[in-house]
Amino acid sequence: MRLSQFHLATVKEIPADAEIVSHKLMLRAGMIRKLAAGIYTWAPLGLRVLRKVEAVVREEMNRAGAIEVLMPSIQPRELWEETGRWEKFGGQLLKIKDRKESEFCFGPTHEEVITDFARAELNSYKQLPINFYQIQTKFRDEIRPRFGVMRAREFLMKDAYSFHLGEECLGKEYWNMYNAYSRIFTRLGLGFRAVEADTGAIGGNASHEFHVLAESGEDAIAFSTGSEYAANVEMAEAVAPSAERPAATATLERVDTPTQRTIDEVSAFLGVDATHCIKTILVRGTDGLVALCVRGDHEVNEIKAGKLPELPGDSQLADEAEIVRVLGCRPGFIGPAGLPDSIPVIVDRSAAAVANFVCGGNQDGTHFRGANWERDARITRVADIRKVVDGDASPDGKGQIRIGRGIEVGHVFQLGTKYAEALQATVLDNDGKKKVMHMGCYGIGVSRIVAAAIEQNFDASGICWPEPMAPWRVAICLINPKNDAAVIDAATSLYDELTARGIEVVMDDRGLRPGPMFADMELIGIPHRVVVSERGLAAGTFEYRARRDADSRQLSREEVLALFA
Amino acid sequence: MRLSQFHLATVKEIPADAEIVSHKLMLRAGMIRKLAAGIYTWAPLGLRVLRKVEAVVREEMNRAGAIEVLMPSIQPRELWEETGRWEKFGGQLLKIKDRKESEFCFGPTHEEVITDFARAELNSYKQLPINFYQIQTKFRDEIRPRFGVMRAREFLMKDAYSFHLGEECLGKEYWNMYNAYSRIFTRLGLGFRAVEADTGAIGGNASHEFHVLAESGEDAIAFSTGSEYAANVEMAEAVAPSAERPAATATLERVDTPTQRTIDEVSAFLGVDATHCIKTILVRGTDGLVALCVRGDHEVNEIKAGKLPELPGDSQLADEAEIVRVLGCRPGFIGPAGLPDSIPVIVDRSAAAVANFVCGGNQDGTHFRGANWERDARITRVADIRKVVDGDASPDGKGQIRIGRGIEVGHVFQLGTKYAEALQATVLDNDGKKKVMHMGCYGIGVSRIVAAAIEQNFDASGICWPEPMAPWRVAICLINPKNDAAVIDAATSLYDELTARGIEVVMDDRGLRPGPMFADMELIGIPHRVVVSERGLAAGTFEYRARRDADSRQLSREEVLALFA
Repeated sequence: MRLSQFHLATVKEIPADAEIVSHKLMLRAGMIRKLAAGIYTWAPLGLRVLRKVEAVVREEMNRAGAIEVLMPSIQPRELWEETGRWEKFGGQLLKIKDRKESEFCFGPTHEEVITDFARAELNSYKQLPINFYQIQTKFRDEIRPRFGVMRAREFLMKDAYSFHLGEECLGKEYWNMYNAYSRIFTRLGLGFRAVEADTGAIGGNASHEFHVLAESGEDAIAFSTGSEYAANVEMAEAVAPSAERPAATATLERVDTPTQRTIDEVSAFLGVDATHCIKTILVRGTDGLVALCVRGDHEVNEIKAGKLPELPGDSQLADEAEIVRVLGCRPGFIGPAGLPDSIPVIVDRSAAAVANFVCGGNQDGTHFRGANWERDARITRVADIRKVVDGDASPDGKGQIRIGRGIEVGHVFQLGTKYAEALQATVLDNDGKKKVMHMGCYGIGVSRIVAAAIEQNFDASGICWPEPMAPWRVAICLINPKNDAAVIDAATSLYDELTARGIEVVMDDRGLRPGPMFADMELIGIPHRVVVSERGLAAGTFEYRARRDADSRQLSREEVLALFA
Repeated sequence: MRLSQFHLATVKEIPADAEIVSHKLMLRAGMIRKLAAGIYTWAPLGLRVLRKVEAVVREEMNRAGAIEVLMPSIQPRELWEETGRWEKFGGQLLKIKDRKESEFCFGPTHEEVITDFARAELNSYKQLPINFYQIQTKFRDEIRPRFGVMRAREFLMKDAYSFHLGEECLGKEYWNMYNAYSRIFTRLGLGFRAVEADTGAIGGNASHEFHVLAESGEDAIAFSTGSEYAANVEMAEAVAPSAERPAATATLERVDTPTQRTIDEVSAFLGVDATHCIKTILVRGTDGLVALCVRGDHEVNEIKAGKLPELPGDSQLADEAEIVRVLGCRPGFIGPAGLPDSIPVIVDRSAAAVANFVCGGNQDGTHFRGANWERDARITRVADIRKVVDGDASPDGKGQIRIGRGIEVGHVFQLGTKYAEALQATVLDNDGKKKVMHMGCYGIGVSRIVAAAIEQNFDASGICWPEPMAPWRVAICLINPKNDAAVIDAATSLYDELTARGIEVVMDDRGLRPGPMFADMELIGIPHRVVVSERGLAAGTFEYRARRDADSRQLSREEVLALFA
C-alpha cells in the first residue's frame, strides 16, 4: 500500500474523555472516530487491525471444527421471553419497536437465536456434537460507555455455541475451544492468561476467562510465575504452607494494647511481625456468629467464606453492638483464644500453620501474646478463606503467585441445559428418546482485542503492535521522494520484493519531512521501518529500525531482505 | 470440507410464503432460516456463498482504489436531522431510543455518517479524491418484506461514498466504479446489464443500476442484442426509423367504423396492419389539450411525454366529457387529421415515418384511411414519446432492443453536493478557499446477489451456481463409504489432490444412498460431481457429471484432474 493512496489521518488533539492509553492512541493514530457515546466508526487504519484479529479468530475457529453462521442483529421479543431474559437482561438490552409496533431487541448476545436455530435444525444425536460460531456486530446499552472500543456500546464479537447430547461431550468441546482460544491469542502475539472464573449463578462445570495482561486492566488476576496457572484473584486457591506448624513453645500472656486495634498498630506496638499475628473477624452465620481467622498479613476472601457450610452465601459482618453483647469487647480486640463454645472458629490454612502468635484478648485494650492453636484456641475447621497475595505458592505446585491486571477478551463457558431446556431444544438419542441438548458458549471480544493489545504494547511514541496485528509489518519511508527519482526507484524495488514475499508493506510516499513521517510511523506502531534516502543510496545502505529498538542501523538491501526471509 | 463435519440440512417442506424460486431453493437447500419477517439467519451453506460474493466485492473495490472503513449500525437522530431525512426517509427508517431516551436509527444507508466522517477527516483538496466503502449490515423496515433475502429487512450491503473537489473528478470516479461493478458481476459469473436509470429528484449527471437478468425480475429493462446498451424500459430511447417516410400516394377517405374503437378492432375490421394505424390520445397540456400520436403497435411512454415542453410533468389524460366538448367525438375516434389548430400535435418518431395511414376521423363511428402527415395532418413536433418494444433498433446503432427483466443488485449515483452542503463538508482548495465537496455513492446488495444468482441459475433439481459463487466447486460423492475402505482411500486421494490445486471440494462422506446424496448435491448446486464407487474403482474410473450436463461420463483419475488443471 502506498500511503498516498490510503487515508491516514493522525491527530494531535484528543478529547478529554479519552482516559486510557489505548483510547488516546487509537484516536491519535486515526484508527477510530466517535459517532456517539460508545459508538465508533473504524477508520481505514483501525479496520486493517480489526480485520487481522478477525481473520486469526476465524482461521482458528475453523481449524477447531466450529462452523460459521451469521445471525441477525434484530431479534424478536417473543424469543427472549421464552428464556425470561426480555425482562431479566436489564438496561443493556436495547429494545426496539418496528413500524407495526412489534418488539425486538438489538442482540447483545445470541443464545436465544442459536438455540432457536438448533431446535429447528438439529433433531438427531447423529448431528451432534456441533459448534456454530459467528463474527458479528452486537449492541449493549452500557450505562457509562467509555475507554473507546474497550467498553463500547456497538462492538464486534465472535460468539460460538456448541450442542451436545451430554456433559462429557460438552466438556471435550470446552477444552477444544480453550485450546483454540490459546492458539488465537498466541498467534496474535499477545501476553495472556486463561483465568479460572466463577461460574456464578448459571452453574456449569467450568468457566475460563481469557485475559490480556496489562497494567491498566480492570480485573485483578492471580497467575503463576512457573506455569500456565491463572485465576480470578477472588477465585485463586491459597494453598496450605508446606511446613508443619512449629511447636507451641511460648506461654500465653495477656498484654495491654490500650489504643492498638489494627494489625499494623498491634504488630508495631508489640514488635511482632504481622505474619505472627492472627486477625479475627466475626460474621453472621446461618446459626449465630462465626469467627474467621486469617494471618495478620492476609485478608478474608468473602467469596470463599460465603461457600463455608457455616455461612449463608451473603454473610454480613457482625456489628459492634452485637460483638459487645456476645463477647463484652469491641472489634479490634477479638481473638480465637477463649471464645464462647457457641462460636465456630474457621481458621485459614496459613493462619493454622502459625504458632506462638499474637491475637485479640476478647477484652477491650488487651491482646494475647504467645497464643497457640489447640492449646489455647479451638479450631472448628481449617479452610481456604483468604485472598491470595503476591508470593504465595501456586496451587499447581509450580512457581509462585503474582497478582497482575488483565483485560477480559474471551470467555468459555459450559452453559449446560439452561437455554435448551427453556426453548425445548431436543434431539432424539440412540434409543429414540427426546433429550434436551447440553450447550457451551464461547465469546471473544474482537474489537476489544485491538484496544487490549495497545494497552499491553505501547511506549511514549505510540503503539508497538505485535507483528501479527500490525496494519503493515514494514514501513518504507522515502526521504524527499518528490525530487528524487532514485529514492522512488530503490524504494519501489524494495517494496515489490518484500510484497512478493508476502510481507505487508506500507510505503510512505507522502513527501513529509523525516520528523513528522517517522513520528507517524511510530505512533501507528509499524514494527519495522526502512528509510530510503539519497545519502543512504550513495552509501549503498538503508536505515533500519525496529519499532522497539533504541537505535537504527545501516543495512544493505540484502540485509534488509534477510530480516524477512 | 468433509460433509460429515459440516452442517448441511436440506429440507423437503417449505413454507407457503416462499413465492419465488430463489426463496424456495434457499430454504430447501438450508442456506437461510427465517427468524422473523424479513430477518434471516445465514446457515453455514448460505454463508459460504455470501462470503464468496463479499470477497469478490472487496477485492474489486480495493483494486479500484476505494478504502475500506466500518461505520456503525446505530446512528444518532441529530445527524439525520442535519439532512432533514429523520422525517423524510419515511417508515423504512427503524427508529430507536436508548436507555437515556436519546434517539437513534438503525442505519438503512450511510450518507449522513460518512459525510460527518468526511467533514472531520478531510480538510484539504490534497486529500481528494477519496472513496470510502464498507460491507456492513443494514436495516430497512419494509412494509411487506418478502422473497426471502431478496427483499429482507436486515441485509448485507456494500456501500461506497466518494468525495471530490468538483464535478469532473466525480465523473471520473463514477466511471471507475461503473467499471469495478462490471468486473464484480462478471467475476461472479452473472448475466447482468448496467442500466441507465432516471436520476429522479436528486438530480446529478448520471445514474446506472446494475441488474442481474432473470425472468422473475421486478424491473423491465431494455437491452441491446448487439452491444452493452441497456436502460430502464421507461428510459430507453426509441430511435427514428432509418427509412424515409414513403410518399403520400393514397387518397384520404372517411370510412365507417361503427363499433370499432381500439387499434385491434379497427385494424382487423379494415384489414390494415397496426403498424399502419396511428393511435392518438389527448392529454391536458400546460395550455389546453395536446394530441400525442404513436404508431398503432406502440404505447405512449408517460415519463418521456412528461418531459415535453407542452406538458406538465404530471400530465393527465383528457376525460371523455372534455373530448366530446372540444372535438364532438368520443375517445376511440380521435385522429390527427382535422384537429382544431389550438391543439398541438406531438408525433412519435416512428409514427412520423408512416404514410397512407388509418387514424380516427374525429367523428363518432368513423376513421380515416389513406391519411398522410403534412398533407392531411399537422405535425407540431416530432419527438420520442413511446415505449421501446422488442425488435427496436438499439439507440447506439448496434443490434436490436430486447425487453427483459432484471433484479437490481447495484446502483451507482452522482449525488453532487446535496449531503456535503447540508452537513457543511468542506475542504480548502488550491487557493485556500472553502469548497463544499461533491459526492458519489455506490451500492451493492451483497445478500441480494445470492438470491438473484439463483433466479438466473436453476433447474428442476435445484440451484446451478456459477462456479465463482458455488459453496464448493466439486462434490466427491462416496458410495457406501462405511463399508468400503478402498472408496474412502480413492476419494481422499482425489480430494487431497484437488485441494492442493486450490480447488474447493466437498466430500460427501455421510453414507447416504446414492439417490438422496445426488439429490442433495444437485439441490445445493455444486458445479462438478465426481462419484467414487467400488464398481468404478474396479473399472479404474470415476463417474463425472457437470451440474448442467444431461448425462454423466466415466473418467479416469487423470481425466478428472485435467478438468481442473
